[in-house]
This record gives sequence, C-alpha cells and structure tokens, in this order.
Amino acid sequence: MKWLRYEADDSARYGVLDGDAIKEVAGTPFDEYKFTGRTHALKAVRLLVPCQPSTFYAAGVNYETHIRSTSAALGKPFVMPRPIDIVGYRAINALSAYGEPIVIPSDSSGKVQYEGELVAVIGKKTRKVSEVDALSHVLGYTIGNDVSERSWQKIDRTFIRSKNCDTFKPMGPWIETDVDLGRLQTVVRLNGKEVSRFATNKMICGVAKAISTISRYVTLYPGDVLWMGTDDPTLDMVAGDSVEIEITGIGVLRNPVVNEARD
Amino acid sequence: MKWLRYEADDSARYGVLDGDAIKEVAGTPFDEYKFTGRTHALKAVRLLVPCQPSTFYAAGVNYETHIRSTSAALGKPFVMPRPIDIVGYRAINALSAYGEPIVIPSDSSGKVQYEGELVAVIGKKTRKVSEVDALSHVLGYTIGNDVSERSWQKIDRTFIRSKNCDTFKPMGPWIETDVDLGRLQTVVRLNGKEVSRFATNKMICGVAKAISTISRYVTLYPGDVLWMGTDDPTLDMVAGDSVEIEITGIGVLRNPVVNEARD
Repeated sequence: MKWLRYEADDSARYGVLDGDAIKEVAGTPFDEYKFTGRTHALKAVRLLVPCQPSTFYAAGVNYETHIRSTSAALGKPFVMPRPIDIVGYRAINALSAYGEPIVIPSDSSGKVQYEGELVAVIGKKTRKVSEVDALSHVLGYTIGNDVSERSWQKIDRTFIRSKNCDTFKPMGPWIETDVDLGRLQTVVRLNGKEVSRFATNKMICGVAKAISTISRYVTLYPGDVLWMGTDDPTLDMVAGDSVEIEITGIGVLRNPVVNEARD
Repeated sequence: MKWLRYEADDSARYGVLDGDAIKEVAGTPFDEYKFTGRTHALKAVRLLVPCQPSTFYAAGVNYETHIRSTSAALGKPFVMPRPIDIVGYRAINALSAYGEPIVIPSDSSGKVQYEGELVAVIGKKTRKVSEVDALSHVLGYTIGNDVSERSWQKIDRTFIRSKNCDTFKPMGPWIETDVDLGRLQTVVRLNGKEVSRFATNKMICGVAKAISTISRYVTLYPGDVLWMGTDDPTLDMVAGDSVEIEITGIGVLRNPVVNEARD
C-alpha cells in the first residue's frame, strides 16, 4: 500500500495509490481514515512531502564504506560508531517534495552532493520500545535525499547550512507500507546514469535498533521520520542535473538541481 | 502584551495575560484572532509551551564566558565562533512547559545542568531578512532552559540524548511582545538561591544578526523559535531541585527536577 500526500483543488490531502490513480482519503494514515470515493490522476496533482514530522531524526554515519570515504575527505580517522552516535536530527524547514528543485545557494563552493537514504515513517507514539517490537511502530518507508554541501560540512560547527538549507531534504514520493528490508537496493542516478548502488539494509545500526536506541530517550510521534543514512562515496551535483534516488520495492525520488538566483 | 498557550476544558488555546487572569482568544497570535470574552484564572489552567514551532533553532556558543568554561570542561581550546557557527537546531520532542518536571534518565551520570536562555519567537515568514529589519519579524520573547547532560555531550557524536531527551527543553511561561533587549538580565536560581546572573543581550551574535544569518539559508516560519544560548558556567541539578530561569521584563520559567523511574 502506497500512501501519498498531495495538493489538489488548492488543498492538501492524503490518498492511496491505485495504478495511475490516487484514491482520496478523508483523515490520515496515522489516525482514522476512510476513502471518499473521489480519485485523482497521479499525473494531475502536485505531490507533497508524504508526511509532516514533528521531529526529523537522521542517522549520519550508518554505512561503513560511506564513513570511510567521508572520514578520508574530512581528514579524520575512521571510527566505528556506537548506535547512540548514529542518530541525530535535522531541521524541518529543509524538507521538500518529489519534483521540487534542489536550490544551490549562490555562495556555495559547488561541493553539493546527494545522499540516497531509506526513511522510516513512525506510525504510532513510541517510547522505550524493544528492538524486537520496534518495526511494528513503523507505518512504512519512503526515500530521502540528504543533500549536503561538503565545504560547509567541513568548516562549520553545526549542520545548519551544510545540510539544512531550504530544499536540501527532498523526501518522497510516497510511503510504502509493504517492505521487505532485506531485499531493498538503493540506486542513485545522475541524469539517468547510475552512480551508486548498495544493499539498503546493510547498515551498522538497522531500523529496529535505531528506533529502540532513540526511543530510550525520546518519544517518537506518528509522522516523525527517521532517515537511515547512506552508503558509498557521493558526487557533486550541478545546476541542470536531475538526481534520482530509487529504492527497489519503494519507488523513485527525482529532483532537478538549480542555482539560486543571485541577489 | 503576554501571550500564553494553555489547556482548559481539555483543549489547547491561546490567551493574553491580564493581571491574574487570561483573556481567551479565538485564533493565534501568528494569524487573525479575536477575544472570545471568556477569561480563566491563571492559577486554574495548565500552561503549555507557548507556541508550537515547526523548527527549533538554537545558538550553542553565544557568550564568551560560557564558551571558555565549556571549552575548558571538554578539554578543547577556546575559539571565537563565526555567526554561522552559532546557530544550530534541536529536536521538538524535547520541549516541555512551565512546571513540567525535568526527568533525569536513569542511566545518566548525573551531570545534568541548566542553561538559562532568551528565546525569540518568529512572528512571520522570514527569508533573507537584513539585520536592520530582523527584529520586526519577531513576535516576542520567552525563556528556555537548555538542559544538558554533560557526560553525554562530551562523548556522543550528536546531541540527541545530551540535549534532546524528553523534558530537556522547558520553555515558557509566555511570550512577551514588549521587550527592550538591552535592559534584560538573565537570573538562574536553584532552590531559590541565585546561581547565575548575566546581561542577556551580551551575546556574540545578537537576535537580529542570528535571524539575518540563518534566514540567508533557511525560511523561518511563524512560531519557530530561536534559543539564544547561555552565559556563565553551569551547575548540576539533582532530583528534588527546583530550577528557575528569570529574564527580567519577561517572567520566570520554573521546573522541578525528578529522576526517571527505573525499569
């Protein structure tokens, strides 16, 4: 089942994908809902970010190959992280939807890179859940592109502009509820050319362990998202590029890249 | 004018303080509103966090004395931060209201400390605002206690548990719209005894500059909050303590400290 959030007739609503159509829903996937009987053509609507998290959690160092390449680029030694070191958080303002442009700030050095990530969407209020029970608290999974400005990531004390500029966190296209984590492949394409492929679930700290670890200290709420990090070295994107993150069994998140208009 | 958010008759609402009474409002301070004509006694209601931010921004290193003491405690050299290094962000889950207990996790080392902070509440959508115009985008000011677990802050890669455990971010009691930043004093009291006092506005990066700096890269939305950091060394709190952050001209944020129940 694929949950979408979209705009039609100037209002935001949830729906369920049925072939090329969206079956409109009254309510939300996190609460009570019923089908209204109305449908919209998928192509005729504007997709929105598929949920509205209150808090946006993010794993930063969750695949060994990526840690090794990032550590080398930043001139830092490789350190295997503990689970508590893996989970951080990001700023909600940066979220954007399928198809929305990734805007490179005019004062960027140009080292703006994609990171293809699995995103777990929390389905119910979660506090101190065991690793065994954690996945039953997930509504489903979507896809994120953790766009990162590497020169700012290297020199700034916080991630506020290196990872949280407006448009730096595309998420979508929808939430897939039927997922076999062990079978997923993450594939990144720049202008249609494959530039990265990895087994999505080959994480240092998997979804269940991440949820269990974080919920020891914080309460997760329905609609909160947990981005799971990326593997592989990553490449620069430039204006005019189209970047696709596919996770097999979920879908494809595609966004164009543009330069910010100069003031 | 003091804006409150509170719970009465099982629902959340905004109101304006008038002596010991709250004049109930239909709507919000960020949008259209009107007085309903109903009032509630301040003592009879439960205060809620005074706004519901979509993103929670926070300055981490904004007073020289505090940076010097924290750097020394963490064994790091003192570095004067650039404005972009000052602004980070926190997790919404950690916000709690006036009077709510600060809960020390059972696996904490006990190095749990207050940080008294001025909080600017954004009043309107803000993007690329100049320092000169920035303060006109602020609805008003409230008070935050940036509770921090110092041993986790020292060893963890992220601030997820050192600064964002549930209950670690008390904020309130209300939003004061009439504030002269230059006259404010921040006073911290533990069990009624003054333990810290500093000129609130003696920041490295003041409110106007912080808003201008951050809005270069991100869009601020009505109700977003910007915590401005703390001065002075800070002290441990233990269960049974009552911690008060007063900012003269705004009010007093008071919260008790308790230990988490052991599993």
